[in-house]
Amino acid sequence: MLEIPAELAGVQMVVAGALSRVEGTIRGALASEIAPVQRLVQHVEAYHGKMIRPTLVSLCGLAVAGRADEGALTQAHITLGAVVEMVHLATLVHDDVLDEADQRRMTETVNRLRGNEAAVMLGDYLFSAAYRLCGQLGDAHATVRIGQTGMTLCAGELLQLDNRGNYSLDEATYYALIDRKTASLISVSCELGARASGADEALATRLARFGTSLGLAFQIQDDLLDLAGDQRLVGKSLGKDAEKGKLTLPVIHHLAMADATARGRTLRLLRDGPAGATSWAEARTELAKAVESTGSITHSRREAQRLVDEAKGHLASLKPSPARALMEAMADAVVTRAF
Amino acid sequence: MLEIPAELAGVQMVVAGALSRVEGTIRGALASEIAPVQRLVQHVEAYHGKMIRPTLVSLCGLAVAGRADEGALTQAHITLGAVVEMVHLATLVHDDVLDEADQRRMTETVNRLRGNEAAVMLGDYLFSAAYRLCGQLGDAHATVRIGQTGMTLCAGELLQLDNRGNYSLDEATYYALIDRKTASLISVSCELGARASGADEALATRLARFGTSLGLAFQIQDDLLDLAGDQRLVGKSLGKDAEKGKLTLPVIHHLAMADATARGRTLRLLRDGPAGATSWAEARTELAKAVESTGSITHSRREAQRLVDEAKGHLASLKPSPARALMEAMADAVVTRAF
Repeated sequence: MLEIPAELAGVQMVVAGALSRVEGTIRGALASEIAPVQRLVQHVEAYHGKMIRPTLVSLCGLAVAGRADEGALTQAHITLGAVVEMVHLATLVHDDVLDEADQRRMTETVNRLRGNEAAVMLGDYLFSAAYRLCGQLGDAHATVRIGQTGMTLCAGELLQLDNRGNYSLDEATYYALIDRKTASLISVSCELGARASGADEALATRLARFGTSLGLAFQIQDDLLDLAGDQRLVGKSLGKDAEKGKLTLPVIHHLAMADATARGRTLRLLRDGPAGATSWAEARTELAKAVESTGSITHSRREAQRLVDEAKGHLASLKPSPARALMEAMADAVVTRAF
Repeated sequence: MLEIPAELAGVQMVVAGALSRVEGTIRGALASEIAPVQRLVQHVEAYHGKMIRPTLVSLCGLAVAGRADEGALTQAHITLGAVVEMVHLATLVHDDVLDEADQRRMTETVNRLRGNEAAVMLGDYLFSAAYRLCGQLGDAHATVRIGQTGMTLCAGELLQLDNRGNYSLDEATYYALIDRKTASLISVSCELGARASGADEALATRLARFGTSLGLAFQIQDDLLDLAGDQRLVGKSLGKDAEKGKLTLPVIHHLAMADATARGRTLRLLRDGPAGATSWAEARTELAKAVESTGSITHSRREAQRLVDEAKGHLASLKPSPARALMEAMADAVVTRAF
């Protein structure tokens, strides 16, 4: 995914080793002696994608320790990495139910394959397994923060649901919403990774802010891909935002900037969906073209870039290290990725 | 609900006081500054019913302490009571999505009122709030047990889903299933209530077993009510088991005992649902009559009674106390309740 400079190969190897232990931990934590449960668990393992959250747990841990060797990562970094990834997997499974999505990471979604009921219960199973694993750490602060973040994620999703079909959604509400539904878990990953290396309150807060800015940028890029990305590259159902009445940054900006005629045309498209014989895929192309015409794609890209710069700014007080450099490279990659 | 002998009025008052503190704790733990979230939380508060699980946390705590005064209950009993009730509320909200139920505790379900998506997210919010609250106790053992129980509940539901429409389900699988989906949370409520009063391993295990037997009896009674209860008394959508292809104890016993003709008729009813112009309500009446004809309602009632006796047997080694007497009365009430 990243073009890694040669001097970062060492820290990248350490992170890759940690991620492999995280995967093993997740497999162990989810294993069930009940065959239909184990089948679903195995299906969901294909959802592991970029593992951004456990990567950030490890990198923040290394950056705080100022080291780039395996010995700087404790069992807590591995366990916490597994916990945040499992919470993420749970939200993916439930998001797919909400979105009626058919495809995720190039594979069929659980709801598509086994019905909404199984997907709801599997998500609950993943959540519960994450909390159990977190409890095993015996770190009450981490447990409370993970539970709190779960609540925040859901509050963000409920706020989004409440604004479905609200075509006058403003940017402030949009940011409040993506801060909760996306940035919160990325932020807590950074915070807990830092704390597990002994970071004090101030440093943990700085890394949490890095995570928040990174998460916001990440969501804007996701929105751009949903509107104008290539489904073959992204590997999940696209165009779901418009179809589900979710206004995203490029569309919000477009509606604010368009003249009355263009605005009316876009609103009709959003409200009524594809007219006549055209499909949602065609409606998506038409919407992307309209949004482009008001410079709203460019505006959204700039916003994402601003947030990436902000994220990197939060790292400025850390002493330079390979881990910090890799975090900066990750931040840059957020806005260049096509998947 | 219970006919309480005069000598138990004291302990009942103590439990009522504890339940009122549990309700306050739940309200505080769920409160959200986000209006659409708070609206849903308030709706779900109407779901508080018999509060059996927090009642058992308190009663087991009192029984272990051998006391019947408020001073014997710690903050841990209140917090744990709120945690198990919140996990229960979460499963109710998600169960209603799975069952497409319209009514719960005399009020409309969240899925009916606000859609499946909101119900899925609200359930996740309730789960997360429960785990956060549990984390605040700083009792790693309780956190792990609650997370583990969440997994068990979901595994039970997934096992049930996997057996939807399996008309050769046997009693052993039925018991394995209801042990997980119903008895596990009741059992852990007893266990954690006992531990919070300083019960040792052996005593906590005995009370956990009391909870398991009670929970199994409770589920069988629930199945009987779904098949042959009065919806006006029960206050939730009934007849959902047959409609959703879930085989319950009376039906399993009936299919094993019926002659070929009766068996064929029942299987057609289960497979094809109400024929022609008849409704599910009428099909339910017909099914109940068929099940009755093979003595399967009587068999199920006897099984429930056997489990109630077993539950009371687990209390025998506790020294007599008002709390123990109230637990015995609760156990008796499980099989006499009509709601």
